[in-house]
Amino acid sequence: MKHIELYDTTLRDGSQAEGITFSLHDKCQLAEHLAKLGFDFVEGGYPASNDKDREFFQKMAEADFSGSPMRIAAFGMTRRKGVAVAQDTGLAALLASAAPVITVVGKSSRFQVEDILRCSKQENLDMIHDSVAFLKSAGREVIFDAEHAFDGWKDEASYFIECLKTAEAAGASRVVLCDTNGGTMPTEIYEIVRKVVDALNIPVGIHCHNDCDLAVANSLAAVDAGATQVQGCINGFGERCGNANLISIAANLALKKGYDVLVPGAIKSLTDLSRYVYEMVNLNAPVNQPYVGKSAFAHKGGMHVSAVNRDSRSYEHIQPAEVGNERRILVSELSGRSNIVAMAQKHHIENDSHLMERILEDVVARESMGYSYEAADGSFDLLVKKCSGDRRSHFDVIKYHVNMTGRNKGDESRIYTEAVVKLNINGETVYEVADGDGPVNALDSALRKALLRSYPTLANMQLLDYKVRVINSEAATAANVRVVIESKDETSTWGTVGVSENVVEASWIALTDSFEYKLFKDGC
Amino acid sequence: MKHIELYDTTLRDGSQAEGITFSLHDKCQLAEHLAKLGFDFVEGGYPASNDKDREFFQKMAEADFSGSPMRIAAFGMTRRKGVAVAQDTGLAALLASAAPVITVVGKSSRFQVEDILRCSKQENLDMIHDSVAFLKSAGREVIFDAEHAFDGWKDEASYFIECLKTAEAAGASRVVLCDTNGGTMPTEIYEIVRKVVDALNIPVGIHCHNDCDLAVANSLAAVDAGATQVQGCINGFGERCGNANLISIAANLALKKGYDVLVPGAIKSLTDLSRYVYEMVNLNAPVNQPYVGKSAFAHKGGMHVSAVNRDSRSYEHIQPAEVGNERRILVSELSGRSNIVAMAQKHHIENDSHLMERILEDVVARESMGYSYEAADGSFDLLVKKCSGDRRSHFDVIKYHVNMTGRNKGDESRIYTEAVVKLNINGETVYEVADGDGPVNALDSALRKALLRSYPTLANMQLLDYKVRVINSEAATAANVRVVIESKDETSTWGTVGVSENVVEASWIALTDSFEYKLFKDGC
Repeated sequence: MKHIELYDTTLRDGSQAEGITFSLHDKCQLAEHLAKLGFDFVEGGYPASNDKDREFFQKMAEADFSGSPMRIAAFGMTRRKGVAVAQDTGLAALLASAAPVITVVGKSSRFQVEDILRCSKQENLDMIHDSVAFLKSAGREVIFDAEHAFDGWKDEASYFIECLKTAEAAGASRVVLCDTNGGTMPTEIYEIVRKVVDALNIPVGIHCHNDCDLAVANSLAAVDAGATQVQGCINGFGERCGNANLISIAANLALKKGYDVLVPGAIKSLTDLSRYVYEMVNLNAPVNQPYVGKSAFAHKGGMHVSAVNRDSRSYEHIQPAEVGNERRILVSELSGRSNIVAMAQKHHIENDSHLMERILEDVVARESMGYSYEAADGSFDLLVKKCSGDRRSHFDVIKYHVNMTGRNKGDESRIYTEAVVKLNINGETVYEVADGDGPVNALDSALRKALLRSYPTLANMQLLDYKVRVINSEAATAANVRVVIESKDETSTWGTVGVSENVVEASWIALTDSFEYKLFKDGC
Repeated sequence: MKHIELYDTTLRDGSQAEGITFSLHDKCQLAEHLAKLGFDFVEGGYPASNDKDREFFQKMAEADFSGSPMRIAAFGMTRRKGVAVAQDTGLAALLASAAPVITVVGKSSRFQVEDILRCSKQENLDMIHDSVAFLKSAGREVIFDAEHAFDGWKDEASYFIECLKTAEAAGASRVVLCDTNGGTMPTEIYEIVRKVVDALNIPVGIHCHNDCDLAVANSLAAVDAGATQVQGCINGFGERCGNANLISIAANLALKKGYDVLVPGAIKSLTDLSRYVYEMVNLNAPVNQPYVGKSAFAHKGGMHVSAVNRDSRSYEHIQPAEVGNERRILVSELSGRSNIVAMAQKHHIENDSHLMERILEDVVARESMGYSYEAADGSFDLLVKKCSGDRRSHFDVIKYHVNMTGRNKGDESRIYTEAVVKLNINGETVYEVADGDGPVNALDSALRKALLRSYPTLANMQLLDYKVRVINSEAATAANVRVVIESKDETSTWGTVGVSENVVEASWIALTDSFEYKLFKDGC
């Protein structure tokens, strides 16, 4: 099986999308996740542009990716016109990143060079040559991204090829053709990639945008024409209409076209990967997303459902499990049984069918309220413990109270927050008050104050992340709110979830679950 | 210019999607809308299946579509096996619909005929022939939809072609190839459609599903191979991953491939059409939808923005106005000055460099606090007004107060929330209290109560969406929180943003900005 390289740029080009940002912590976690699945390259950012990306590359230099084929790539531009490579601050930042692979984008279109950049064709060739050779001589692998490639070909094919050959001669390991404005048709992609593959001796990659709703098809057309690297983003994130969706591309290449992509077994976790990234950026996953959406294998019409039961091929082009998804029959809200079974297997209780039934009932009831356990393993653990009668409370809540007063001071308002918790801990009533930067912080402080004397291991637990989502956005403020809290101690991290019409109550539920989970974990 | 027929099945196949339903009134309105734009066929439903569809066809029979090429189509199946056409209730319902065009779906795959339907190959040919001939003899135009066409070809090409030729011989005006499970690749679609076009003397159509993220590409591949009718749904609605998106297809056929589709000028209203249909089914339009999404021509990166200003072709494959969309410049952390200048141009203040400088300073200072104006055009407007000295407050906040008390009741906790606002409105002190489902809802209610008497137009404003993000997740509860609120009235929607360590204060800032923006907008 021929291998096709997947080059993920979710952390760089994907973060150009409106409303999508990754914290430094997110970036490191996603890079590690992609490494485990065998993405060949993970482009982490643009070290010349901001501190967060610089810090990311520092952390990556210290990370251990042994066992994964993945290499971290830093993204930047060819040197500026009229500036020597050694003086170019962008190239210096790329080298400082310590990334083993450096992807430099450069111009390959006569129009872009002469009319937009306003420099001579020769100067641009020099910029490509100097930049690639400079980075290569510093011991880095260099990938040359040809911006506006297809428009460049149409404008002046000979100059376009000259740019690519210059990068090749200067030591680039790969040349990638970017359909920068996303306007090229699959037939054109095929023809042009084929000519480029014939003209060069190094592997050719493809980088598509979805402006014509064709980014996946264009990527496949390029592979048909001999490209061996596909660049894109998880879930098709990216500016405007997004980059090529690497989830769909990986599935199509592996399951439809018989290519070797990722590490063995990784295709089965595409659904998890897709949802993990939506959770990370706090977006709802579109239910109709190809391969991995919640509705991708959902059957509604009665005719279809019986046909699916008779032969699934009639309405399912693959087995849902091949991408880690599952069939849903929309006769009722009751869905996802196999998910719950799979989660229960983690707790080694799959053989207790009576218990499984109780867990299923409880999960279905809670999902209908808006709970979701995908990012809340801690809360799911507590639910399993409750259903199996294995849960004792480490504390009971008698009441809690949050009080906030805001006042305008000139142009800015200031707010003061105080939280009170009254708990029963092993028969003893504890009543504590604390203030904080907001209701969750104040409640967290008051809870700790109340619990720490009885449970000293809580001292090494801290909140890591806090995410809020309105579940039914149609009804706005009166809709349910889901809060997911991620916590950690020295040995692990866990997620807990709370749902309520009230954001503070939802936070309180997730917060107390996190404390309970920690106490169970520690065997208290 | 060669004409390609567009056959819309939003009202039939599109309504199979989870969460999408059309009322009878919706169906009639959409059919009229599509007729005006020149869709060649509008498939209105399945008259055998329900009363709503039956009523729809009655209304359509009375409607006046003169001046439009559009013809209404009713959808049904070939006669059942072993039943004479005159006794088949499904065919009777189709005739009763009075639709001028009847589309009958039938089997063309040996596997489906013998293994699923469990009848002989000859019986299926008879079912096709009898049904088409029966409807045709009743004076209707008949389109034959070949279900599982591509799997059928792969299973037994000769039988597949025999089915199509049977429909042709019985009087079908067109044969349509359905990729029923959505699993076929564009190269296969091209090859098989070409062979079918060569084998038949009537026009061939294509009907794709998006299970591989390729429905648009597959439809175009079929047209490349000689198909002259494309079936699909507005916005790619449809079960599982949706049908082929007719918005993208119409734009690609007209603007990229030079075909004649729809009536002159209709391509310019694709953005309106797309949004109109989202409104009808009460779904939020995906911002990244190709051609018509709010972000389809949005530019974020500073480098791109200056290039777009110099030459739009660099990052825009068409002029946004060609599909009725518009360019948007996003103010974001990755942006430089050029983004803000472009935003300011909307306010016609780009020539006041002193003012521009003040706005830039203010935006940079606020971005460093965690503000982001990408989704907060309302707050940006207020910021511009403040910097230009053009902003008077419609109300001043003296104080606000939120009080929440939670108590455990068995296993569930309950919380009660009350908000108090004290405002100065044109010199008058107003002091109001309200309760609500959470702090934001309670504050919204109290604010309305306080402001409504002075500003009655606030009655038609409502909150549409509420999003919360922790900006620096490393520090968790003590980190800044960004709240974005989307609001609407009868004529428009707008976003506002607030940032604070306290989620309630951040919500309060976004909420009061939304009220202020609405009051400015209304000229209060």
